[in-house]
Amino acid sequence: MATHKVTFLPAEISTDVPTGSLVTEAVKTAGLEISQPCGGQGRCGRCAVMIESGKVRRRSTIRLNSDDLKAGFALACQALIEGDAVISIPDQERIERRLVTEHTARAIELPYAYSPDKLQVIQTFQLTLQPPSLDDSQDDLSRLSDALREFGYDPVDVHLSILQRFGSILRDSDWKPHILLETSRPGAGRARLIAIDSAPFQPFGVALDIGTTTVTAYLVDLMSGKVKASAAEYNGQIARGEDVISRIIYAGKGDGLNELGLLVRETIQDLLEKLQRRSGVSPEEIYKVTVAGNTTMIHLFLRLPPETIRLTPYIPALNQPPCFLARDLDLPIHPLASVDCLPGVASYVGADISAGVLASGLAESDSLTLFIDVGTNGEIVLGTREWMLTCACSAGPAFEGAGVVDGMRATNGAIEEVWVHSETYEPTYRVIGGGKPHGICGSGLISLLSELFVTGVIDRSGSVKLDLDTPRVREGEHGPEYVVAWPNETDTGQDIVLTKVDINNLMRAKAAIYAGYSVLATSVGVDLADVQQVLVGGAFGKYINVENAIKIGLLPDLPWDSFHFLGNTSALGAYMGLLSSESREQIQEIAARMTYMELSADNTFFDAFTAALFLPHTDISRFPSVAEIWEQDGGHSDENK
Amino acid sequence: MATHKVTFLPAEISTDVPTGSLVTEAVKTAGLEISQPCGGQGRCGRCAVMIESGKVRRRSTIRLNSDDLKAGFALACQALIEGDAVISIPDQERIERRLVTEHTARAIELPYAYSPDKLQVIQTFQLTLQPPSLDDSQDDLSRLSDALREFGYDPVDVHLSILQRFGSILRDSDWKPHILLETSRPGAGRARLIAIDSAPFQPFGVALDIGTTTVTAYLVDLMSGKVKASAAEYNGQIARGEDVISRIIYAGKGDGLNELGLLVRETIQDLLEKLQRRSGVSPEEIYKVTVAGNTTMIHLFLRLPPETIRLTPYIPALNQPPCFLARDLDLPIHPLASVDCLPGVASYVGADISAGVLASGLAESDSLTLFIDVGTNGEIVLGTREWMLTCACSAGPAFEGAGVVDGMRATNGAIEEVWVHSETYEPTYRVIGGGKPHGICGSGLISLLSELFVTGVIDRSGSVKLDLDTPRVREGEHGPEYVVAWPNETDTGQDIVLTKVDINNLMRAKAAIYAGYSVLATSVGVDLADVQQVLVGGAFGKYINVENAIKIGLLPDLPWDSFHFLGNTSALGAYMGLLSSESREQIQEIAARMTYMELSADNTFFDAFTAALFLPHTDISRFPSVAEIWEQDGGHSDENK
Repeated sequence: MATHKVTFLPAEISTDVPTGSLVTEAVKTAGLEISQPCGGQGRCGRCAVMIESGKVRRRSTIRLNSDDLKAGFALACQALIEGDAVISIPDQERIERRLVTEHTARAIELPYAYSPDKLQVIQTFQLTLQPPSLDDSQDDLSRLSDALREFGYDPVDVHLSILQRFGSILRDSDWKPHILLETSRPGAGRARLIAIDSAPFQPFGVALDIGTTTVTAYLVDLMSGKVKASAAEYNGQIARGEDVISRIIYAGKGDGLNELGLLVRETIQDLLEKLQRRSGVSPEEIYKVTVAGNTTMIHLFLRLPPETIRLTPYIPALNQPPCFLARDLDLPIHPLASVDCLPGVASYVGADISAGVLASGLAESDSLTLFIDVGTNGEIVLGTREWMLTCACSAGPAFEGAGVVDGMRATNGAIEEVWVHSETYEPTYRVIGGGKPHGICGSGLISLLSELFVTGVIDRSGSVKLDLDTPRVREGEHGPEYVVAWPNETDTGQDIVLTKVDINNLMRAKAAIYAGYSVLATSVGVDLADVQQVLVGGAFGKYINVENAIKIGLLPDLPWDSFHFLGNTSALGAYMGLLSSESREQIQEIAARMTYMELSADNTFFDAFTAALFLPHTDISRFPSVAEIWEQDGGHSDENK
Repeated sequence: MATHKVTFLPAEISTDVPTGSLVTEAVKTAGLEISQPCGGQGRCGRCAVMIESGKVRRRSTIRLNSDDLKAGFALACQALIEGDAVISIPDQERIERRLVTEHTARAIELPYAYSPDKLQVIQTFQLTLQPPSLDDSQDDLSRLSDALREFGYDPVDVHLSILQRFGSILRDSDWKPHILLETSRPGAGRARLIAIDSAPFQPFGVALDIGTTTVTAYLVDLMSGKVKASAAEYNGQIARGEDVISRIIYAGKGDGLNELGLLVRETIQDLLEKLQRRSGVSPEEIYKVTVAGNTTMIHLFLRLPPETIRLTPYIPALNQPPCFLARDLDLPIHPLASVDCLPGVASYVGADISAGVLASGLAESDSLTLFIDVGTNGEIVLGTREWMLTCACSAGPAFEGAGVVDGMRATNGAIEEVWVHSETYEPTYRVIGGGKPHGICGSGLISLLSELFVTGVIDRSGSVKLDLDTPRVREGEHGPEYVVAWPNETDTGQDIVLTKVDINNLMRAKAAIYAGYSVLATSVGVDLADVQQVLVGGAFGKYINVENAIKIGLLPDLPWDSFHFLGNTSALGAYMGLLSSESREQIQEIAARMTYMELSADNTFFDAFTAALFLPHTDISRFPSVAEIWEQDGGHSDENK
């Protein structure tokens, strides 16, 4: 058998290996190391190397996109040496960054295609007024109004609390006051004076996404559009019920509505304190808030009784709230800040989706697009710029790390990706922030479920195979479980496990989402295979892995290029609406244009849900790429049952 | 000498008297009595009798208007028997009522030319909505808004507190809710939902006049326009200063502004409690308030710092306040009631005058009209429907019964008219409510000052003649004084007196008002004699006597027919603006049309004021009718000095 000389960079160490050797074997021969968390199964993408020159054949290109291939990347565990070659081993960090970048290209941390322009909702500028005299004894307010009229703002609403002190500001500023104006508000055809001062303003705003499980806040410089800080926390209402239905029931009892209103305010207060610590910006400098969230969350935030949302025919008090003042909503920011709750579509397709659809670009797309918001109450939109159909499926909070024993949000200490060795069943994981793990976030759960399924630790129904020869599977306190980390490896000193109950919750969540989009597609006679792009939003982690999500049947089996992970589209839409009146109007239009389909009135949904309670689905032919792996592996999971 | 038979009705007693006898002599001869408080000087009008038939010559027709003359009235003390006659002696009550009616023809107790029509600002009606269904899952607010749109109201503002409970009202009312709507608001081009209920509304409103000295409130049935109750109280701020200037100074010290704001609220609260006691209407049923008052009072009510009103160039924070909600102003009525502070003209011509001019009819008049509002801060308007010139003169509160030892408001127990016998100097008086007197109100003070002047108790400079042979004049605790009532005649057991200090205050008040309108007339080249009508507004009592007011130089010396006493025109204007959007707009137009003249920037005012500090004036030729009496009496006052 011929041998070939392989040189590895940057170490410049060479070795000879026989034709057909895997690159991973050559690495080992050369005395080097490369990370293979999945056990060399071509699943994790962490052994990606760069073929600088020479003949190397890729046996599989899983995890590599067309840009990666063009750049010369290959998976070391799936690439065969067929001639002399020079191969670079990137350091681990570089690979991780590549994977991260791939999935967060449109993440919100960077301002979203925003440039300050005349469409800015909040404007600040300096006025120059003629001082009064005995010959010109116009009152202060008329004098101010006349000056604003010259800028095209007429009439301008001025709050009593400003009227009670603007006179001295006019005089202190030598009749050259700086003003802060809200140029337009939904439902009010006039500008509003938010503040007036003798010093210039540097106004900030907050884009708030009130999720059933997670509340996210972005602190935005309203002049530059820059995000100064962001923060997320579990919604304090969780202790009163994990999903919207249980919250609605809680709200209906005694002082429940008020209590839930207070709890979410406490969460927002915590977020504001975090934002202040991270940015140095005081809450008093926050002059505008946009709020996205599902219809129930908006009701609870505004303390509107949500009862009718839950009862047929599922009617919300309102889908398009008017603007309120922060003081009227007890928000501890500037009391005259405007609080703009974005418009929703129906009881179960709320402002989070109107905002998310704007952020996703679906409403401007010519391609048949599936938009999935993976939150506690998974919402789905199917359509193009011409039409949009939407529905909601109660997914539960599992993908947000709630309702899972060791689940957590995607913050420092969360396991966000897991690889399970196919022979030893030993896990490797990546922890956000790099320290010891504290729990597992949504993307980590998807990854873990997929790995357990592919390596045969669980079967297609999600049952843990306790007879495997590994201490990682065991009968735990809550039934069968898989141990992801031992006590000495975690920052709590406790095991991190995934229990059978957790797996069932994850299965139900993914089945609900699958059932949702498949029923939607069927209802308009569209084949899921015809979908040209899938836009995925959700607060469940930015590092979600398409392959894993397909393997467990959460996402439809389409080419990987079709998927775009957009992060928290709801918060992104709120951010866009915060800055631009044009975006704000678009959200309104989107809410008005979407056609809502009530799944609870449709028996096919329950059938589709039940059929999807398998990995990836009862009918595996719906997931050809998974079926292929399955056949390669000889369907071992089921055989080992 | 011929004698004639005179028969008196209703007693049917006859007597024979010589030709040329006075009717009063014939009454005496017949053994009857008739009241002659002024001592038979033809000043009081209380001896009016009806000449049923026969020949009786009227020597003077003072106090009788043309209607009275046509009806056959004559003053018994001024009528000469020149043939047989039949004469009715009306009972005292009837004469009093006649005098009252004469002076209150346009008083506010009766709705002012008001009929409910489509211009009503507050509307209430019942809606019929289609109940929602799975096929019609429109949200509650859109459903309500669509129904209101059919009535022409779009958009309609709905307050958060209504949004928080209207859903259950819609359902409780079987989708047939009653709504209460404010159809228009100054400064807001849209309707507003004030309330919604399953039962019909019977909405009330309050017209409020916040005077420097007196606060007046009318409780109005907003559907019928009927005044259900009225109440007035001294402004609780009086203890912090009697005129606007001292209030402004007080407001500028420490927490003064807030304190004054609280004091007037306490007064309003007292008034609301009185209105409730008198009508049974709860404050929660009050859905709208219009507020008239001078500019400083409006500033203090809204807690706007008034300092710049006092300092040159005398600039108010605003002349046209927007509408506020009762909850934002801490008014204890329906929290979503609209509080509409009417528009003013300038720092010293406020909403009380805009409203008063509307109520007076000046703005619609072709005649050259002088409008005088006799309040603490006397305001004057001169003009026609074509033009209006206005100014303010600081009169002080004397005519409102404040700043006078035994002064009081025109309520029960107030002496409202006084007659002094020309020989005995004994007073006769009429007390509001008919009981023992408690003090003297504004009209009583005018009447008393005039009587003391005409009978020579005081001289033209207002000095009390202590050498008169009567115990009524004496050196009192506060200097020379005239005793109106002895302790045993009063309800307090104390003397009621008029002191030299009181007289000086009254003199200054009347001089300021005279100076105001004379300077105004001079500035536009108008002779006061050309004024065709004088409209007098003011809270100083409804029974003011023109003759007396002219005698002391408060009113210009014009034919009595020229004068119309309108009562509290400010409150009347507030009442009109409360009910009709057309009236409300007219007030706005009036405020915009009036040209303000700043007297403090005009030296001629001070000269005119000084010249008017005599009775009736330094230049008595300006008051020819007074000069005539003076000459008849031989100018005894001055001679006796």
